[in-house]
Amino acid sequence: MITSTSNPRIRTVRSLHTAKGRKQAGRTILEGPNGREALATSDTRPTDIFLLEGDTETAAYAASLGIEATVVSEAVLQSASDTKHPLGPLFVIEVPEASTIRYHRTVCLVDVSDPGNVGTIVRTAAALGWDAATFGTTSDPWSPKALRAAAGVTLRIHLAISHDPLADAASVGLTTVALIVDGGEALREGSEPSCLLVGSEAHGLPDAIVEGANMAATIPMASGTESLNAAIAAALAMHTLA
Amino acid sequence: MITSTSNPRIRTVRSLHTAKGRKQAGRTILEGPNGREALATSDTRPTDIFLLEGDTETAAYAASLGIEATVVSEAVLQSASDTKHPLGPLFVIEVPEASTIRYHRTVCLVDVSDPGNVGTIVRTAAALGWDAATFGTTSDPWSPKALRAAAGVTLRIHLAISHDPLADAASVGLTTVALIVDGGEALREGSEPSCLLVGSEAHGLPDAIVEGANMAATIPMASGTESLNAAIAAALAMHTLA
Repeated sequence: MITSTSNPRIRTVRSLHTAKGRKQAGRTILEGPNGREALATSDTRPTDIFLLEGDTETAAYAASLGIEATVVSEAVLQSASDTKHPLGPLFVIEVPEASTIRYHRTVCLVDVSDPGNVGTIVRTAAALGWDAATFGTTSDPWSPKALRAAAGVTLRIHLAISHDPLADAASVGLTTVALIVDGGEALREGSEPSCLLVGSEAHGLPDAIVEGANMAATIPMASGTESLNAAIAAALAMHTLA
Repeated sequence: MITSTSNPRIRTVRSLHTAKGRKQAGRTILEGPNGREALATSDTRPTDIFLLEGDTETAAYAASLGIEATVVSEAVLQSASDTKHPLGPLFVIEVPEASTIRYHRTVCLVDVSDPGNVGTIVRTAAALGWDAATFGTTSDPWSPKALRAAAGVTLRIHLAISHDPLADAASVGLTTVALIVDGGEALREGSEPSCLLVGSEAHGLPDAIVEGANMAATIPMASGTESLNAAIAAALAMHTLA
């Protein structure tokens, strides 16, 4: 049982809450009973499992995989988690190799920065039958917060990284649609699968992407003073396009 | 300048983070520069303003209203806020009297409990031209977290409280649509305005509401294993119905 928050393994886990730490280790964290359920219905095998004493469900899951789980104190769990009142367990997993954009409806996150929005867009994409992709360094679907908001689907969805989304989408035959706050065309159902480009909450999409896309589209709103959360706007656009 | 976190005024502000405290005081809290912008474009006049030293924008806003703002230390602001790294300012406002459901498209929250979802649904309703209503004690659009997620529109939207949403909606002539996770009819554009009923994240809508509504509707999903966040489901339904 680990009772010291400065235990080296716990320090390593803590580092995975930062983008830098995840990049160095190639790993991330899934938390809570929902994390366990997502893992149990996926092919992903955790590399480490930390749990509180008496967590028989997680102990049984670890035993079924032949993994030796590590019991930690509540203070240690608290220090390794980014939630205020963690229940445990905590799973360390390897971040899988990213795919590339394929010929399938794809929502591409261009520096969407709020991890809750990133995870919610991934979750919505999975539910509506879309792939997801990221461009830039800001949107990390593998951050623990984004994984939580995605409710486990990150392990199952086709998730791509693109270094040039307009070129990558065009090369596989996708129509590119830039989602902009105002002044774009009305979205309509497309006969061809699209790559829907969604920009950051604060700055929207870069001009080069808006100008280079096949279409710039806007969700009509009741009044000019209102706005939509980025995850809501992405959901309405995916729903309309498909 | 207040430098003690046990100052009675600060204790009162802290109590407004709980449902009980808001009910007793009839007040709530708007935070941050976004809170100030929302207030500045509304008719709501704060009853108290707390700010950090050097916050000239908030000081100017307070002066424009003839309100004496109170400077607080960072530790006091931290203790009065529910965000981890508050920037200030912090505004206390009176919770306005709730309206009743009127003949207009209305999304009714039936014990939606996550304040982020509550606020996001209010924000989406405003953007898409819907009213919002709540039923039950769980959904509080006036909690500081819900106000933050709603990005200020709570002060402008027609916001109703209903003690019997099916009866209240019917009495003004609205069609009632219960949103359920599976097994409902496909949503389609309605010729009549609807009262869309959205249930809690964990338990959905009570059976009595699903059975008593004019229609039970489901958003089609790509696979039975997926699910949508409550705010996303509500947004897709509002967008489809209107």
